[in-house]
Amino acid sequence: MKTHLINWEPLRAYCQRLLQTQGMPEDEALIVADCLVEADLCGVESHGVSRMTIYLKRLEEKVVNPVYRIEIEKEYPGSMAINACNSMGMVAGKRIMQMCIDKAKQNGSCFITVSHSNHYGMAYYYVKMAAEQNMIGITATNAPPNIAPWGSFQAYMGTNPIAISAPSGAQPIILDMAPSVVAMGKLILAAKLGKPIPEGWAMTAEGQPTTDPNEGMKGTVLPIGGPKGYGIALFVDILCGALSGAYFGPHLGNMWHDFVNPQNVGHIFSCIDISKFLPPEDFKKRVDQIKQEIKVLPKNPGVTEIFMPGEIEWKRAADRREKGITVPETVYEELKQLGEKYHTAFDL
Amino acid sequence: MKTHLINWEPLRAYCQRLLQTQGMPEDEALIVADCLVEADLCGVESHGVSRMTIYLKRLEEKVVNPVYRIEIEKEYPGSMAINACNSMGMVAGKRIMQMCIDKAKQNGSCFITVSHSNHYGMAYYYVKMAAEQNMIGITATNAPPNIAPWGSFQAYMGTNPIAISAPSGAQPIILDMAPSVVAMGKLILAAKLGKPIPEGWAMTAEGQPTTDPNEGMKGTVLPIGGPKGYGIALFVDILCGALSGAYFGPHLGNMWHDFVNPQNVGHIFSCIDISKFLPPEDFKKRVDQIKQEIKVLPKNPGVTEIFMPGEIEWKRAADRREKGITVPETVYEELKQLGEKYHTAFDL
Repeated sequence: MKTHLINWEPLRAYCQRLLQTQGMPEDEALIVADCLVEADLCGVESHGVSRMTIYLKRLEEKVVNPVYRIEIEKEYPGSMAINACNSMGMVAGKRIMQMCIDKAKQNGSCFITVSHSNHYGMAYYYVKMAAEQNMIGITATNAPPNIAPWGSFQAYMGTNPIAISAPSGAQPIILDMAPSVVAMGKLILAAKLGKPIPEGWAMTAEGQPTTDPNEGMKGTVLPIGGPKGYGIALFVDILCGALSGAYFGPHLGNMWHDFVNPQNVGHIFSCIDISKFLPPEDFKKRVDQIKQEIKVLPKNPGVTEIFMPGEIEWKRAADRREKGITVPETVYEELKQLGEKYHTAFDL
Repeated sequence: MKTHLINWEPLRAYCQRLLQTQGMPEDEALIVADCLVEADLCGVESHGVSRMTIYLKRLEEKVVNPVYRIEIEKEYPGSMAINACNSMGMVAGKRIMQMCIDKAKQNGSCFITVSHSNHYGMAYYYVKMAAEQNMIGITATNAPPNIAPWGSFQAYMGTNPIAISAPSGAQPIILDMAPSVVAMGKLILAAKLGKPIPEGWAMTAEGQPTTDPNEGMKGTVLPIGGPKGYGIALFVDILCGALSGAYFGPHLGNMWHDFVNPQNVGHIFSCIDISKFLPPEDFKKRVDQIKQEIKVLPKNPGVTEIFMPGEIEWKRAADRREKGITVPETVYEELKQLGEKYHTAFDL
């Protein structure tokens, strides 16, 4: 497969310019472009610049508001209930996570619900912000259905991701996970490559185990730990949907097919200010000790290093920031065509 | 196997009296007895009255303080850092969860760390309290090592449970889960019955997959979703251990073998006051809607009902509260012998 090696900065600038053609202010377009490019840097291509086409389409169809606006519906020292007024999910995400950090600095901790939002990209992005400000950061979002409750084969919950971060002496420890064994994206990739998938990844629409990625895509992905993953996915929806006032379960709007109704996605953001428990330097030393103790444990055959959550993504991002991002020909062509469509000079 | 059908109230009263012989005040002994009996009511026998022997032994050896005492090390509107001064875990757990609820009522949310505590029984018990007061309740605790970091076969993290609750129109929805595929208790049971365990439950001490429960008990239990369950177990330890100031990983004291050094277990408690987001009645209606929609989904072959997290435990508890708890002969005999040892009339 032909690929292109592209520097992250011009890639981000190009995406930013494209988003500005659809009415996004310069600073807000930068946030969206930055979140997408960060995903590509980390190797989470499913949440990277390949999403530009659908985001631009939704802005063009005016099913998403191009200018950030929120309504604070309720506010207390340790909580906020926010209506994101159908703003772009990443702009809402970044600004509201910063509000959460600021309130946690005052009060020790803070918990915020967000309703009437949109797809907010990679959850990692927001908790990384928190860790860089000496916070434990937590976020989760609901998503359209892809996981069935345990005992059923019909999707109800999305692959609702949850992310949590902690600073360390070096890079932060970041866990960003869906409660499914694999992301739907891995099925899409297997189908494209014509490869079978292992048993335990997905069920058909009729509830049969399958190794055919196409059948799995019509069905559901399986939750981790059976009823445990079901429970995690459900509780993300209870918080992000039921508590926030957003849609939940199958009521969520579909980003890919519905260009009339807003998605009404819900998120949560939560921060814990480490300095309200112990000096952040002491905390980081304790986390470093954990890391050092884990690194020297005996390894399984074929394992060269034991990684902390998020460590692989962090190292990959550092590497790609220096050497460039490898963009597949299909995505490269898509970006080029977006330039033509939205009258933006393509310079990558 | 011979069993005894015992009413929960005399069982709880007997356990309470036994605990009082070792210096526990009447009201505190009641909390511990109640938490143990609640676990038996729910069918979580691993955390039930079968633990009386070890709790009494630890009290007798004076490795645990029989009288509840805490030091509030830091307090802010939305947070507390508490040293539980080697109190009994359940007494600390129940009282500190109530403090968390009260602070969340004032501030919207609250997050509390607890250090220098002990085994606190079933996490379900504390989040149930929160749900009954219209809160989202969250708790987690660290535990001595039983899970290896992904890529290793040496245990570092415990089967660190995490629990979360939400009220509904009927009973609360409660997820109480370890990040391992199964609890170590299931291996112990299989070993007792001389039965093999399925692949995917455990590794030997040398990192080999095993179906022999005895080999698994010497090794580690596997995390759910591979690196995901590792990440969850690790973050519970980062919060309950590194942030709280308690021990973490392999440094935690062993409840069963060490009668000299306090365990220094850490917990977290967090509450979100639903009324600070929407009227609790509206929230409960939304959760009921989710429940109703899930209940009518098509079922897998052999499935008669789709359950909400915690629903099976709740129904079992209601049933056993009415009809009695079935106690196996071994546990019955143990309880009887404890009466002789601690000069307490056995009346069950």
